[in-house]
Amino acid sequence: MKLKNNPPKATIKRLSIYLRYLSGLALEETKVISSYKMAQRLALNPAQVRKDLSYFGKFGKRGVGYNVEQVREDIIKILGIQKIRNVGIVGAGGSLGRALSLYRGFEKRNFKIVALFDNNPELIGQSLKGASEILSIDTLEEVVKSKDIEILILTVPGSAVRGLCDKISKSGVRAVLNFAPYKMICTKKLVVHNVDLTTELESISYHLAMNESETLNDI
Amino acid sequence: MKLKNNPPKATIKRLSIYLRYLSGLALEETKVISSYKMAQRLALNPAQVRKDLSYFGKFGKRGVGYNVEQVREDIIKILGIQKIRNVGIVGAGGSLGRALSLYRGFEKRNFKIVALFDNNPELIGQSLKGASEILSIDTLEEVVKSKDIEILILTVPGSAVRGLCDKISKSGVRAVLNFAPYKMICTKKLVVHNVDLTTELESISYHLAMNESETLNDI
Repeated sequence: MKLKNNPPKATIKRLSIYLRYLSGLALEETKVISSYKMAQRLALNPAQVRKDLSYFGKFGKRGVGYNVEQVREDIIKILGIQKIRNVGIVGAGGSLGRALSLYRGFEKRNFKIVALFDNNPELIGQSLKGASEILSIDTLEEVVKSKDIEILILTVPGSAVRGLCDKISKSGVRAVLNFAPYKMICTKKLVVHNVDLTTELESISYHLAMNESETLNDI
Repeated sequence: MKLKNNPPKATIKRLSIYLRYLSGLALEETKVISSYKMAQRLALNPAQVRKDLSYFGKFGKRGVGYNVEQVREDIIKILGIQKIRNVGIVGAGGSLGRALSLYRGFEKRNFKIVALFDNNPELIGQSLKGASEILSIDTLEEVVKSKDIEILILTVPGSAVRGLCDKISKSGVRAVLNFAPYKMICTKKLVVHNVDLTTELESISYHLAMNESETLNDI
Protein backbone atom coordinates (compact mmCIF):
# COMPACT_ATOMS: atom_id res chain seq x y z
CA MET A 1 0.00 0.00 0.00
CA LYS A 2 1.32 3.40 -0.87
CA LEU A 3 0.59 6.16 1.61
CA LYS A 4 0.67 9.75 0.44
CA ASN A 5 1.79 10.87 3.86
CA ASN A 6 3.08 8.89 6.77
CA PRO A 7 0.33 8.94 9.37
CA PRO A 8 1.37 10.41 12.73
CA LYS A 9 2.02 8.11 15.68
CA ALA A 10 -1.19 9.22 17.35
CA THR A 11 -3.18 8.00 14.32
CA ILE A 12 -1.58 4.56 14.57
CA LYS A 13 -2.52 4.37 18.25
CA ARG A 14 -6.06 5.41 17.48
CA LEU A 15 -6.30 2.61 14.89
CA SER A 16 -5.93 0.17 17.80
CA ILE A 17 -8.75 1.92 19.59
CA TYR A 18 -10.96 1.90 16.49
CA LEU A 19 -10.21 -1.78 16.00
CA ARG A 20 -11.33 -2.65 19.50
CA TYR A 21 -14.53 -0.67 19.09
CA LEU A 22 -15.27 -2.12 15.66
CA SER A 23 -14.63 -5.65 16.95
CA GLY A 24 -17.26 -5.05 19.62
CA LEU A 25 -19.69 -3.80 16.97
CA ALA A 26 -18.97 -6.82 14.75
CA LEU A 27 -19.86 -9.11 17.66
CA GLU A 28 -23.17 -7.29 18.02
CA GLU A 29 -23.63 -7.73 14.25
CA THR A 30 -23.70 -4.01 13.55
CA LYS A 31 -22.97 -3.60 9.83
CA VAL A 32 -22.29 0.10 9.37
CA ILE A 33 -21.13 2.91 11.62
CA SER A 34 -20.85 6.64 11.07
CA SER A 35 -17.75 8.62 11.95
CA TYR A 36 -20.03 10.70 14.17
CA LYS A 37 -21.11 7.73 16.29
CA MET A 38 -17.62 6.32 16.48
CA ALA A 39 -16.25 9.68 17.54
CA GLN A 40 -18.97 10.16 20.14
CA ARG A 41 -18.32 6.80 21.78
CA LEU A 42 -14.55 7.27 21.78
CA ALA A 43 -14.59 10.93 22.85
CA LEU A 44 -12.94 12.04 19.62
CA ASN A 45 -13.82 14.49 16.91
CA PRO A 46 -15.66 13.02 13.86
CA ALA A 47 -13.33 14.92 11.52
CA GLN A 48 -10.38 13.31 13.31
CA VAL A 49 -11.84 9.82 12.81
CA ARG A 50 -12.41 10.50 9.10
CA LYS A 51 -8.92 11.93 8.68
CA ASP A 52 -7.30 8.98 10.47
CA LEU A 53 -9.06 6.43 8.27
CA SER A 54 -8.49 8.42 5.09
CA TYR A 55 -4.71 7.97 5.54
CA PHE A 56 -5.36 4.37 4.63
CA GLY A 57 -7.76 5.05 1.80
CA LYS A 58 -10.89 4.44 3.87
CA PHE A 59 -13.73 6.81 3.13
CA GLY A 60 -17.15 6.28 4.67
CA LYS A 61 -20.19 6.78 2.45
CA ARG A 62 -21.74 10.16 3.14
CA GLY A 63 -24.96 9.71 5.11
CA VAL A 64 -24.32 5.98 5.53
CA GLY A 65 -20.97 5.46 7.18
CA TYR A 66 -18.25 2.83 7.23
CA ASN A 67 -18.65 -0.88 6.63
CA VAL A 68 -17.71 -2.25 10.07
CA GLU A 69 -16.30 -5.59 8.94
CA GLN A 70 -14.38 -4.10 6.03
CA VAL A 71 -12.70 -1.36 8.08
CA ARG A 72 -11.98 -3.87 10.85
CA GLU A 73 -10.23 -6.26 8.47
CA ASP A 74 -8.27 -3.44 6.89
CA ILE A 75 -7.04 -2.11 10.24
CA ILE A 76 -5.92 -5.63 11.20
CA LYS A 77 -3.85 -5.76 8.01
CA ILE A 78 -2.51 -2.23 8.43
CA LEU A 79 -1.39 -3.06 11.97
CA GLY A 80 0.08 -6.32 10.71
CA ILE A 81 -1.74 -8.37 13.35
CA GLN A 82 -3.46 -10.85 11.05
CA LYS A 83 -0.64 -13.21 11.95
CA ILE A 84 0.89 -14.22 15.25
CA ARG A 85 4.02 -12.29 16.23
CA ASN A 86 6.36 -14.00 18.66
CA VAL A 87 7.58 -11.98 21.62
CA GLY A 88 10.35 -12.49 24.20
CA ILE A 89 10.64 -10.76 27.57
CA VAL A 90 14.08 -9.64 28.75
CA GLY A 91 14.18 -9.06 32.50
CA ALA A 92 11.39 -11.57 33.09
CA GLY A 93 12.47 -12.16 36.69
CA GLY A 94 11.59 -8.63 37.85
CA SER A 95 8.12 -7.70 39.06
CA LEU A 96 7.01 -6.00 35.85
CA GLY A 97 8.59 -8.76 33.74
CA ARG A 98 6.75 -11.39 35.74
CA ALA A 99 3.45 -9.62 35.36
CA LEU A 100 3.83 -9.22 31.61
CA SER A 101 4.88 -12.88 31.30
CA LEU A 102 1.56 -13.84 32.85
CA TYR A 103 -0.54 -11.17 31.15
CA ARG A 104 -3.07 -12.89 28.90
CA GLY A 105 -4.10 -9.74 27.03
CA PHE A 106 -1.23 -9.93 24.55
CA GLU A 107 -2.02 -13.38 23.23
CA LYS A 108 -5.65 -12.50 22.64
CA ARG A 109 -4.36 -9.93 20.18
CA ASN A 110 -1.91 -12.22 18.39
CA PHE A 111 1.25 -11.37 20.34
CA LYS A 112 2.54 -14.64 21.72
CA ILE A 113 5.13 -14.65 24.50
CA VAL A 114 7.39 -17.55 23.58
CA ALA A 115 10.51 -16.97 25.68
CA LEU A 116 11.59 -15.35 28.95
CA PHE A 117 15.14 -14.13 29.63
CA ASP A 118 17.01 -12.85 32.66
CA ASN A 119 20.62 -12.44 33.68
CA ASN A 120 20.17 -13.46 37.33
CA PRO A 121 21.75 -16.94 37.73
CA GLU A 122 19.36 -17.71 40.59
CA LEU A 123 16.34 -17.26 38.35
CA ILE A 124 17.60 -19.01 35.22
CA GLY A 125 15.94 -22.38 34.86
CA GLN A 126 13.00 -21.42 37.06
CA SER A 127 9.49 -21.46 35.65
CA LEU A 128 6.92 -18.86 36.53
CA LYS A 129 3.58 -20.44 37.31
CA GLY A 130 1.67 -20.51 34.03
CA ALA A 131 4.63 -19.30 31.97
CA SER A 132 7.72 -20.83 30.44
CA GLU A 133 11.18 -21.35 31.94
CA ILE A 134 13.48 -18.35 32.36
CA LEU A 135 16.47 -18.60 30.01
CA SER A 136 19.88 -17.02 30.30
CA ILE A 137 20.24 -13.75 28.42
CA ASP A 138 23.34 -15.33 26.88
CA THR A 139 21.09 -17.59 24.80
CA LEU A 140 19.24 -14.61 23.31
CA GLU A 141 20.55 -14.80 19.75
CA GLU A 142 20.07 -18.56 19.53
CA VAL A 143 16.54 -18.52 20.96
CA VAL A 144 15.45 -15.51 18.87
CA LYS A 145 16.35 -17.54 15.78
CA SER A 146 14.97 -20.91 16.91
CA LYS A 147 11.68 -19.44 18.18
CA ASP A 148 11.34 -16.82 15.44
CA ILE A 149 11.02 -13.93 17.91
CA GLU A 150 10.28 -10.59 16.26
CA ILE A 151 9.74 -8.36 19.29
CA LEU A 152 11.49 -8.11 22.66
CA ILE A 153 9.83 -6.53 25.69
CA LEU A 154 12.48 -5.01 27.93
CA THR A 155 11.73 -4.82 31.66
CA VAL A 156 15.26 -4.50 33.00
CA PRO A 157 16.53 -1.75 35.34
CA GLY A 158 17.41 1.50 33.57
CA SER A 159 21.10 0.98 34.23
CA ALA A 160 21.06 -2.29 32.24
CA VAL A 161 19.70 -0.90 28.98
CA ARG A 162 22.88 0.49 27.46
CA GLY A 163 24.74 -2.78 28.00
CA LEU A 164 22.00 -4.74 26.25
CA CYS A 165 21.83 -2.71 23.02
CA ASP A 166 24.56 -4.62 21.29
CA LYS A 167 23.27 -8.04 22.29
CA ILE A 168 19.75 -7.16 21.19
CA SER A 169 20.86 -5.66 17.87
CA LYS A 170 22.88 -8.76 17.07
CA SER A 171 20.10 -11.15 18.07
CA GLY A 172 18.11 -10.42 14.94
CA VAL A 173 14.90 -9.20 16.56
CA ARG A 174 13.14 -6.47 14.66
CA ALA A 175 11.64 -4.40 17.44
CA VAL A 176 11.83 -3.57 21.12
CA LEU A 177 9.19 -2.35 23.53
CA ASN A 178 11.28 -0.79 26.29
CA PHE A 179 9.74 -0.34 29.74
CA ALA A 180 13.06 0.48 31.40
CA PRO A 181 13.28 4.07 32.65
CA TYR A 182 16.10 4.81 30.22
CA LYS A 183 15.47 5.77 26.64
CA MET A 184 16.91 3.13 24.36
CA ILE A 185 18.84 4.39 21.37
CA CYS A 186 20.07 1.60 19.13
CA THR A 187 20.78 1.06 15.48
CA LYS A 188 18.28 2.55 13.08
CA LYS A 189 17.24 -0.86 11.81
CA LEU A 190 15.63 -1.71 15.14
CA VAL A 191 12.15 -0.29 15.83
CA VAL A 192 12.16 0.89 19.46
CA HIS A 193 9.19 2.16 21.45
CA ASN A 194 9.89 3.48 24.92
CA VAL A 195 7.12 3.27 27.52
CA ASP A 196 7.82 4.65 30.95
CA LEU A 197 5.11 4.01 33.50
CA THR A 198 6.40 6.65 35.90
CA THR A 199 6.39 9.23 33.11
CA GLU A 200 2.67 8.57 32.77
CA LEU A 201 2.18 9.36 36.45
CA GLU A 202 4.33 12.47 36.10
CA SER A 203 2.19 13.71 33.21
CA ILE A 204 -0.85 13.26 35.40
CA SER A 205 0.87 15.06 38.26
CA TYR A 206 1.62 17.97 35.92
CA HIS A 207 -2.11 18.39 35.29
CA LEU A 208 -2.82 18.23 39.01
CA ALA A 209 -0.09 20.77 39.74
CA MET A 210 -1.53 23.15 37.14
CA ASN A 211 -4.60 23.38 39.37
CA GLU A 212 -2.63 23.87 42.56
CA SER A 213 -1.89 27.56 42.52
CA GLU A 214 0.23 27.47 45.68
CA THR A 215 2.66 25.19 43.90
CA LEU A 216 2.76 27.24 40.76
CA ASN A 217 3.46 30.51 42.54
CA ASP A 218 6.74 29.00 43.66
CA ILE A 219 8.07 28.62 40.14
CA MET B 1 3.28 30.61 36.52
CA LYS B 2 1.58 31.95 33.44
CA LEU B 3 2.14 30.00 30.23
CA LYS B 4 1.66 31.78 26.94
CA ASN B 5 0.63 28.53 25.31
CA ASN B 6 -0.28 25.21 26.81
CA PRO B 7 2.63 22.90 26.06
CA PRO B 8 1.72 19.80 24.05
CA LYS B 9 1.47 16.43 25.80
CA ALA B 10 4.70 15.29 24.16
CA THR B 11 6.55 18.19 25.78
CA ILE B 12 5.28 17.17 29.23
CA LYS B 13 6.50 13.62 28.63
CA ARG B 14 9.88 14.88 27.52
CA LEU B 15 10.16 16.91 30.73
CA SER B 16 10.22 13.59 32.60
CA ILE B 17 13.00 12.41 30.33
CA TYR B 18 14.97 15.63 30.79
CA LEU B 19 14.51 15.36 34.53
CA ARG B 20 15.95 11.88 34.65
CA TYR B 21 18.92 12.91 32.55
CA LEU B 22 19.54 16.08 34.58
CA SER B 23 19.30 14.11 37.84
CA GLY B 24 22.05 11.84 36.55
CA LEU B 25 24.16 14.88 35.66
CA ALA B 26 23.55 16.41 39.09
CA LEU B 27 24.83 13.22 40.73
CA GLU B 28 27.99 13.51 38.64
CA GLU B 29 28.20 17.15 39.77
CA THR B 30 27.92 18.54 36.25
CA LYS B 31 26.90 22.18 36.61
CA VAL B 32 25.86 23.26 33.10
CA ILE B 33 24.62 21.45 30.02
CA SER B 34 23.99 22.66 26.49
CA SER B 35 20.80 21.88 24.59
CA TYR B 36 23.04 20.30 21.97
CA LYS B 37 24.54 17.77 24.39
CA MET B 38 21.19 17.02 26.00
CA ALA B 39 19.63 16.48 22.60
CA GLN B 40 22.46 14.26 21.45
CA ARG B 41 22.23 11.98 24.47
CA LEU B 42 18.45 11.73 24.27
CA ALA B 43 18.25 11.37 20.48
CA LEU B 44 16.29 14.59 20.15
CA ASN B 45 16.75 17.77 18.18
CA PRO B 46 18.49 20.65 20.08
CA ALA B 47 15.84 23.08 18.81
CA GLN B 48 13.19 20.77 20.27
CA VAL B 49 14.90 20.76 23.67
CA ARG B 50 15.13 24.55 23.66
CA LYS B 51 11.52 24.92 22.59
CA ASP B 52 10.29 22.49 25.26
CA LEU B 53 12.11 24.33 28.03
CA SER B 54 11.14 27.77 26.74
CA TYR B 55 7.45 26.92 27.35
CA PHE B 56 8.35 27.21 31.01
CA GLY B 57 10.49 30.29 30.68
CA LYS B 58 13.79 28.43 30.67
CA PHE B 59 16.36 29.82 28.30
CA GLY B 60 19.91 28.53 28.32
CA LYS B 61 22.72 31.07 28.05
CA ARG B 62 24.01 31.17 24.50
CA GLY B 63 27.40 29.46 24.35
CA VAL B 64 27.10 28.28 27.97
CA GLY B 65 23.93 26.26 28.36
CA TYR B 66 21.47 25.50 31.12
CA ASN B 67 22.13 25.43 34.84
CA VAL B 68 21.57 21.74 35.60
CA GLU B 69 20.37 22.11 39.18
CA GLN B 70 18.11 25.05 38.41
CA VAL B 71 16.38 23.42 35.45
CA ARG B 72 16.08 20.18 37.43
CA GLU B 73 14.37 21.90 40.35
CA ASP B 74 12.06 23.80 38.04
CA ILE B 75 10.98 20.66 36.18
CA ILE B 76 10.24 18.97 39.53
CA LYS B 77 7.96 21.88 40.42
CA ILE B 78 6.36 22.02 36.98
CA LEU B 79 5.56 18.30 37.19
CA GLY B 80 4.30 18.79 40.74
CA ILE B 81 6.46 15.99 42.09
CA GLN B 82 8.23 17.94 44.83
CA LYS B 83 5.69 16.40 47.19
CA ILE B 84 4.50 12.84 47.65
CA ARG B 85 1.30 11.96 45.80
CA ASN B 86 -0.70 9.07 47.19
CA VAL B 87 -1.88 6.43 44.74
CA GLY B 88 -4.40 3.57 44.95
CA ILE B 89 -4.59 0.56 42.63
CA VAL B 90 -8.02 -0.70 41.56
CA GLY B 91 -7.91 -4.27 40.29
CA ALA B 92 -4.88 -5.05 42.42
CA GLY B 93 -5.64 -8.78 42.39
CA GLY B 94 -4.98 -9.19 38.66
CA SER B 95 -1.53 -9.92 37.28
CA LEU B 96 -0.80 -6.37 36.13
CA GLY B 97 -2.28 -4.95 39.34
CA ARG B 98 -0.09 -7.23 41.42
CA ALA B 99 3.01 -6.22 39.49
CA LEU B 100 2.33 -2.53 39.85
CA SER B 101 1.58 -2.99 43.58
CA LEU B 102 5.08 -4.38 43.98
CA TYR B 103 6.80 -2.03 41.52
CA ARG B 104 9.31 0.08 43.45
CA GLY B 105 9.91 2.57 40.65
CA PHE B 106 6.89 4.71 41.51
CA GLU B 107 7.88 5.42 45.09
CA LYS B 108 11.38 6.49 44.07
CA ARG B 109 9.70 9.27 42.14
CA ASN B 110 7.33 10.36 44.91
CA PHE B 111 4.26 8.36 43.92
CA LYS B 112 3.36 6.29 46.95
CA ILE B 113 0.99 3.35 46.64
CA VAL B 114 -1.07 3.51 49.81
CA ALA B 115 -4.07 1.28 49.08
CA LEU B 116 -5.05 -1.72 46.94
CA PHE B 117 -8.62 -2.45 45.86
CA ASP B 118 -10.38 -5.35 44.17
CA ASN B 119 -13.94 -6.58 43.83
CA ASN B 120 -13.14 -10.30 44.12
CA PRO B 121 -14.38 -11.47 47.56
CA GLU B 122 -11.73 -14.21 47.59
CA LEU B 123 -8.92 -11.66 47.35
CA ILE B 124 -10.25 -9.04 49.76
CA GLY B 125 -8.33 -9.16 53.02
CA GLN B 126 -5.34 -10.89 51.43
CA SER B 127 -1.95 -9.21 51.49
CA LEU B 128 0.45 -9.37 48.58
CA LYS B 129 3.96 -10.12 49.75
CA GLY B 130 5.63 -6.76 50.30
CA ALA B 131 2.44 -4.80 49.71
CA SER B 132 -0.61 -3.85 51.74
CA GLU B 133 -3.90 -5.70 52.21
CA ILE B 134 -6.42 -5.76 49.36
CA LEU B 135 -9.53 -3.77 50.27
CA SER B 136 -13.04 -4.06 48.91
CA ILE B 137 -13.81 -1.64 46.10
CA ASP B 138 -16.87 -0.69 48.16
CA THR B 139 -14.59 1.11 50.60
CA LEU B 140 -13.10 3.29 47.84
CA GLU B 141 -14.66 6.62 48.78
CA GLU B 142 -13.88 6.19 52.48
CA VAL B 143 -10.26 5.11 51.91
CA VAL B 144 -9.58 7.81 49.29
CA LYS B 145 -10.53 10.35 51.93
CA SER B 146 -8.79 8.75 54.91
CA LYS B 147 -5.56 8.09 52.99
CA ASP B 148 -5.64 11.26 50.92
CA ILE B 149 -5.40 9.40 47.60
CA GLU B 150 -5.07 11.70 44.59
CA ILE B 151 -4.50 9.19 41.79
CA LEU B 152 -6.02 5.78 41.03
CA ILE B 153 -4.28 3.26 38.79
CA LEU B 154 -6.89 1.12 37.06
CA THR B 155 -5.91 -2.44 36.12
CA VAL B 156 -9.35 -4.00 35.81
CA PRO B 157 -10.68 -5.90 32.75
CA GLY B 158 -11.98 -3.66 29.97
CA SER B 159 -15.54 -4.69 30.64
CA ALA B 160 -15.37 -3.36 34.21
CA VAL B 161 -14.37 0.22 33.37
CA ARG B 162 -17.76 1.68 32.53
CA GLY B 163 -19.28 0.38 35.76
CA LEU B 164 -16.51 1.98 37.82
CA CYS B 165 -16.72 5.53 36.42
CA ASP B 166 -19.43 6.63 38.80
CA LYS B 167 -17.76 5.15 41.88
CA ILE B 168 -14.42 6.70 40.97
CA SER B 169 -15.89 10.12 40.20
CA LYS B 170 -17.69 10.14 43.54
CA SER B 171 -14.65 8.97 45.49
CA GLY B 172 -12.95 12.35 45.24
CA VAL B 173 -9.74 11.27 43.50
CA ARG B 174 -8.37 13.80 41.07
CA ALA B 175 -6.85 11.58 38.40
CA VAL B 176 -6.86 8.10 36.90
CA LEU B 177 -4.17 6.19 35.05
CA ASN B 178 -6.19 3.60 33.16
CA PHE B 179 -4.46 0.43 31.95
CA ALA B 180 -7.71 -1.33 31.07
CA PRO B 181 -8.15 -1.90 27.33
CA TYR B 182 -11.18 0.36 27.28
CA LYS B 183 -10.92 4.08 26.96
CA MET B 184 -12.27 5.71 30.08
CA ILE B 185 -14.51 8.70 29.55
CA CYS B 186 -15.65 10.27 32.79
CA THR B 187 -16.57 13.68 34.07
CA LYS B 188 -14.38 16.53 32.90
CA LYS B 189 -13.15 17.24 36.41
CA LEU B 190 -11.22 13.97 36.50
CA VAL B 191 -7.83 13.86 34.72
CA VAL B 192 -7.68 10.52 32.87
CA HIS B 193 -4.71 9.06 31.02
CA ASN B 194 -5.26 5.84 29.13
CA VAL B 195 -2.31 3.49 28.63
CA ASP B 196 -2.89 0.33 26.67
CA LEU B 197 0.04 -2.05 26.63
CA THR B 198 -1.30 -4.02 23.69
CA THR B 199 -1.71 -0.83 21.69
CA GLU B 200 2.02 -0.28 22.13
CA LEU B 201 2.69 -3.69 20.61
CA GLU B 202 0.26 -2.96 17.79
CA SER B 203 2.08 0.28 16.97
CA ILE B 204 5.30 -1.69 16.77
CA SER B 205 3.63 -4.30 14.59
CA TYR B 206 2.49 -1.53 12.24
CA HIS B 207 6.10 -0.52 11.68
CA LEU B 208 7.09 -4.14 11.08
CA ALA B 209 4.21 -4.61 8.64
CA MET B 210 5.24 -1.50 6.72
CA ASN B 211 8.43 -3.37 5.85
CA GLU B 212 6.66 -6.56 4.90
CA SER B 213 5.56 -5.87 1.35
CA GLU B 214 3.67 -9.14 1.02
CA THR B 215 1.37 -8.02 3.80
CA LEU B 216 0.87 -4.59 2.41
CA ASN B 217 0.06 -5.73 -1.09
CA ASP B 218 -3.01 -7.40 0.37
CA ILE B 219 -4.53 -4.15 1.50
